[in-house]
Amino acid sequence: HYGEAEKEDLVGCTTGLAWTEVGGELLTIEAVMLRGKGRVTTTGKLGDVMKESVQAAESFVKSRATQFGIKPTLFERKDIHVHVPEGATPKDGPSAGVAMTTSIVSVLTGIPVRKDVAMTGEITLRGRVLPIGGLKEKLLAALRGGIKTVLIPKDNEKDLADIPDNVKRGLTIIPVTTADEVLANALVQPLVSIEWSEPEIVEPVAAKAAEDGKDDVIRH
Amino acid sequence: HYGEAEKEDLVGCTTGLAWTEVGGELLTIEAVMLRGKGRVTTTGKLGDVMKESVQAAESFVKSRATQFGIKPTLFERKDIHVHVPEGATPKDGPSAGVAMTTSIVSVLTGIPVRKDVAMTGEITLRGRVLPIGGLKEKLLAALRGGIKTVLIPKDNEKDLADIPDNVKRGLTIIPVTTADEVLANALVQPLVSIEWSEPEIVEPVAAKAAEDGKDDVIRH
Amino acid sequence: HYGEAEKEDLVGCTTGLAWTEVGGELLTIEAVMLRGKGRVTTTGKLGDVMKESVQAAESFVKSRATQFGIKPTLFERKDIHVHVPEGATPKDGPSAGVAMTTSIVSVLTGIPVRKDVAMTGEITLRGRVLPIGGLKEKLLAALRGGIKTVLIPKDNEKDLADIPDNVKRGLTIIPVTTADEVLANALVQPLVSIEWSEPEIVEPVAAKAAEDGKDDVIRH
Amino acid sequence: HYGEAEKEDLVGCTTGLAWTEVGGELLTIEAVMLRGKGRVTTTGKLGDVMKESVQAAESFVKSRATQFGIKPTLFERKDIHVHVPEGATPKDGPSAGVAMTTSIVSVLTGIPVRKDVAMTGEITLRGRVLPIGGLKEKLLAALRGGIKTVLIPKDNEKDLADIPDNVKRGLTIIPVTTADEVLANALVQPLVSIEWSEPEIVEPVAAKAAEDGKDDVIRH
Amino acid sequence: HYGEAEKEDLVGCTTGLAWTEVGGELLTIEAVMLRGKGRVTTTGKLGDVMKESVQAAESFVKSRATQFGIKPTLFERKDIHVHVPEGATPKDGPSAGVAMTTSIVSVLTGIPVRKDVAMTGEITLRGRVLPIGGLKEKLLAALRGGIKTVLIPKDNEKDLADIPDNVKRGLTIIPVTTADEVLANALVQPLVSIEWSEPEIVEPVAAKAAEDGKDDVIRH
Amino acid sequence: HYGEAEKEDLVGCTTGLAWTEVGGELLTIEAVMLRGKGRVTTTGKLGDVMKESVQAAESFVKSRATQFGIKPTLFERKDIHVHVPEGATPKDGPSAGVAMTTSIVSVLTGIPVRKDVAMTGEITLRGRVLPIGGLKEKLLAALRGGIKTVLIPKDNEKDLADIPDNVKRGLTIIPVTTADEVLANALVQPLVSIEWSEPEIVEPVAAKAAEDGKDDVIRH
Ligand SMILES: [Ca+2]
Ligand SMILES: [Ca+2]
Ligand SMILES: [Ca+2]
Ligand SMILES: [Ca+2]
Ligand SMILES: [Ca+2]
Ligand SMILES: [Ca+2]
Ligand SMILES: [Ca+2]
Ligand SMILES: [Ca+2]
Ligand SMILES: [Ca+2]
Ligand SMILES: [Ca+2]
Ligand SMILES: [Ca+2]
Ligand SMILES: [Ca+2]
Repeated sequence: HYGEAEKEDLVGCTTGLAWTEVGGELLTIEAVMLRGKGRVTTTGKLGDVMKESVQAAESFVKSRATQFGIKPTLFERKDIHVHVPEGATPKDGPSAGVAMTTSIVSVLTGIPVRKDVAMTGEITLRGRVLPIGGLKEKLLAALRGGIKTVLIPKDNEKDLADIPDNVKRGLTIIPVTTADEVLANALVQPLVSIEWSEPEIVEPVAAKAAEDGKDDVIRH
Repeated sequence: HYGEAEKEDLVGCTTGLAWTEVGGELLTIEAVMLRGKGRVTTTGKLGDVMKESVQAAESFVKSRATQFGIKPTLFERKDIHVHVPEGATPKDGPSAGVAMTTSIVSVLTGIPVRKDVAMTGEITLRGRVLPIGGLKEKLLAALRGGIKTVLIPKDNEKDLADIPDNVKRGLTIIPVTTADEVLANALVQPLVSIEWSEPEIVEPVAAKAAEDGKDDVIRH
Repeated sequence: HYGEAEKEDLVGCTTGLAWTEVGGELLTIEAVMLRGKGRVTTTGKLGDVMKESVQAAESFVKSRATQFGIKPTLFERKDIHVHVPEGATPKDGPSAGVAMTTSIVSVLTGIPVRKDVAMTGEITLRGRVLPIGGLKEKLLAALRGGIKTVLIPKDNEKDLADIPDNVKRGLTIIPVTTADEVLANALVQPLVSIEWSEPEIVEPVAAKAAEDGKDDVIRH
Repeated sequence: HYGEAEKEDLVGCTTGLAWTEVGGELLTIEAVMLRGKGRVTTTGKLGDVMKESVQAAESFVKSRATQFGIKPTLFERKDIHVHVPEGATPKDGPSAGVAMTTSIVSVLTGIPVRKDVAMTGEITLRGRVLPIGGLKEKLLAALRGGIKTVLIPKDNEKDLADIPDNVKRGLTIIPVTTADEVLANALVQPLVSIEWSEPEIVEPVAAKAAEDGKDDVIRH
Repeated sequence: HYGEAEKEDLVGCTTGLAWTEVGGELLTIEAVMLRGKGRVTTTGKLGDVMKESVQAAESFVKSRATQFGIKPTLFERKDIHVHVPEGATPKDGPSAGVAMTTSIVSVLTGIPVRKDVAMTGEITLRGRVLPIGGLKEKLLAALRGGIKTVLIPKDNEKDLADIPDNVKRGLTIIPVTTADEVLANALVQPLVSIEWSEPEIVEPVAAKAAEDGKDDVIRH
Repeated sequence: HYGEAEKEDLVGCTTGLAWTEVGGELLTIEAVMLRGKGRVTTTGKLGDVMKESVQAAESFVKSRATQFGIKPTLFERKDIHVHVPEGATPKDGPSAGVAMTTSIVSVLTGIPVRKDVAMTGEITLRGRVLPIGGLKEKLLAALRGGIKTVLIPKDNEKDLADIPDNVKRGLTIIPVTTADEVLANALVQPLVSIEWSEPEIVEPVAAKAAEDGKDDVIRH
């Protein structure tokens, strides 16, 4: 059923953790790759903060593409659609940022996400993981939903004191500070970086200047 | 009359099921294909959630195009318009997602939709069918409208206990978990997948590197 | 004067029928064709439902273009502007859909609309004519404005029982179920379909595969 | 001073007549032509109805371009900006439509507008002039501002009975039914139509069919 | 300090005069030229009327470009950004129009604006200067801020009767009716017009007709 | 932890200072460079004034690009994303302008920002630094967060009288009037200007005129 851990390791599907007034909940972050021009679309009744957190995840991944093994030219011919079911439920907040990042990297690399891992944490543009609220409710939901491992922000480690022992025993809780740690724990295979040299931009004037034996860039 | 099952199997016309305060209702989802660039337009006083559910249906179909027998290049020269009459009645919610998916696949493949099938269910980006509300009212409307078969989300199967026996006798009710099952039951012919190899993207630098005897992608 | 039947059969000008709190009224739907790229603009203080009904009319006409004798390539170099005077009066609702359709087909084919015909009815994307409200007031306005023939939705035929006899004697009332019937009655000449074969899209990969003796589309 | 008749016949400047709660007022409609792509921009705190009336004027002029001596290709490289000073005063309503039309035709043809003519009237897409309100206040403002001739909608002729005799003696009042009459009275020179044949669109398929001895357009 | 006359004659920086509830204030209008396509961006919490006044200034300058010594082709590769510090203070009204015009002409020609000149006045599309409010407060602010010369609309000359003598003695007040007078007084060098002949547009059909010995434009 | 000085000198990460109702706070301004077309995106729940302050920073940097050692052609193939964590906290006001400027210059030049420098100040389009509010709270936050040097607007120097002595002893406070001073103090290396000559725009007509022995630009 929906709201439980996935049955398989899937490409583009990451389990986030939401906090609601009636408790925590599993949140599936779905991403697919489509023909396009590098745009990212979002659906699922996402509030402005959650939409911006997808944008941050997108720019983070694009700016680190080669490190994650993604050819930068891929963005010239592919769009990404990120959807968060259930479509009638409003969702907001930045805490699904790390799950967004994971789904995007998964779909761009084709590497599946571990079905028994859930995660929560705000992502910044350079990949730092910032603390979130509702940790207890989220961990309870993870346990209830059959999750085995939960990635939480290092800055939330102090809140673990308040978590019931049976929850801490039932889950492997991994505090993380960077998106790299998130990806290392969430994807079924390690990311392998690629070397990439941007095509030289031939600038008419520069070229002309060079022919004249003069460099168009003079430092002084 | 409008609000009854179609008289013929039509391309692009699927019967959905709506829940309103005064009972269930048949809802026709119309789609046509137009010259364009892969955009999807929606009309019929659709709320934001229903519009997003069309977007999810669209991305799901595009990401599975070859599996459904649709050449991906079709989206470079065709738009789709999805309309839900009656134009003055506000409509919202994600439960027409599977009907949207069916109309889009039908219009793209040219395969008609069975006139005596109605359906309800939220669609996700990877084709899962999520549960909906108002099952009883929807089934009553289907029976009243002359529908023979109703596709419902597997997760709503438990609600069948509350449905009057005469309704269950008058309809073939098929619980489904994926869009593939929906399409297999709703279209008059089976979908036949195609093989497709994307044109190789010749990247200037990569090419140059290869000439130099070096691969531009070095895994380490 | 404005609000009366036209003096001549005009290209792009159709008489619709509006319902207002103080009775029915004739409504002129004006359309002109302009250089452009297939876009449709609307003006005349139209509400969202009426704007969407123009979009539905537009897509219906585009998807049936050749049947109406319109070369599909026309949309690559022409825009259409649909205007409903009087500009300060708010107008809404889907019931001018058939009149919108008629004005658009008239302006695209150059065939004038009969000056003594008025019409009311919602249009759907596949050309079905759906029922409307305010039939009595609309017919009274038609009679008062010098109209001879009124096209009404077949599903409103039952409402004719409530119409005064003098109105029914003064007007030829034609119930219709499809846009084809509307156009046959409203235009001064019959539409003549054309044959059209889309230019073959030469796809690089497909072509290459064929040269290799392999078909890129393998059904299995 | 502003609010009086112009001192010279100017290209692109037409005197309209506004009705306000404290009486009528002269309204200058300024238009300039700029490099561009056929777009029309409006400024001057115009309400939605007045903006739409500029759009109607624009489409009317474009659809009749050759009749007014304007090469249709001009719109491929020129934009028009229509501004109504004073910028802080909100303005709305359709009654400046004929003045908008006159300024646009003037700026496109380079023919100046008579400085002693003012006008009021709604314009429709095919150039009909529809009636307006506040005729008395507008005529008083015209007289006060030094205007000699006022163009009014034919449908407002009946309201002249209520206008004081000294106003009717001080002004030449010309009732008009079409934009052609407006332009004939407002511009300092008559418009001279041009003949224009659109470049033939060579359509690949049509051409190919013709070579094959078959016409791609078969009427039946 | 901010709110005082500039220390130097600067390109793109003009001193306007604002009226606020607590008195007049100097307002710096900053403009810079950027690579682009002829667009004008505005920032500084400007209200709609002030934004439109920048648009009017922009179109006025573009339509008179050669007269001001600006090559029209410059707009094909340059954008302009107009900013009014202080960014948190809302600003509105049309009275900075002449200052906007001056900053735009200055940045496009590279001619600096006199540091000791301030100005106020609405600009119209053809360069007329319309009257403004708050003249007294604005002149007081100019004097306080170290300004020597203030350009005011000719139509505000009558308001000078109410201005204290010491203010009139401390400032050179120049009433103006046109943007040309503004620019002549505000820029450190006179503008020098250029001659410019638009490239001939070779129109395929026209050309073809001419070869056939027929003119495609026949006046009758 | 977040809200403390960075551990390293980072490219694109600048520490700003925010004022909130419960005191001052460190604010990280993150920027990354992406493939694109010279656009700047912002996220982090920024209010309109803060968004406009990013636009001002952007235009300031673009208009001074060569002075900062940035090739103007870089903007033809790169976008910048500016993000301000924490994503759920609304932020507004112009006082982060200098920090925005610093992050943008850092990411465009690749020169890191000093980890122990924080700053506050509005930026104008020509690089002036304008005064801000909440100086005391901001300095306290800087001290608390481990910052060593704070750049403040010269116009706020007078407010230092109210700052407790221990704060002034614990921080190096540098009043600045221009963005150049900000960058000199914030970046780990000095900026080195480049010489740049724009490619000559060959204008067809101008060229033709020159061939004819006539200059198309005649000053008179
Ligand atoms: Ca739920
Ligand atoms: Ca989460
Ligand atoms: Ca109904
Ligand atoms: Ca449904
Ligand atoms: Ca009326
Ligand atoms: Ca109607
Ligand atoms: Ca006035
Ligand atoms: Ca008027
Ligand atoms: Ca101030
Ligand atoms: Ca001012
Ligand atoms: Ca905080
Ligand atoms: Ca700050």
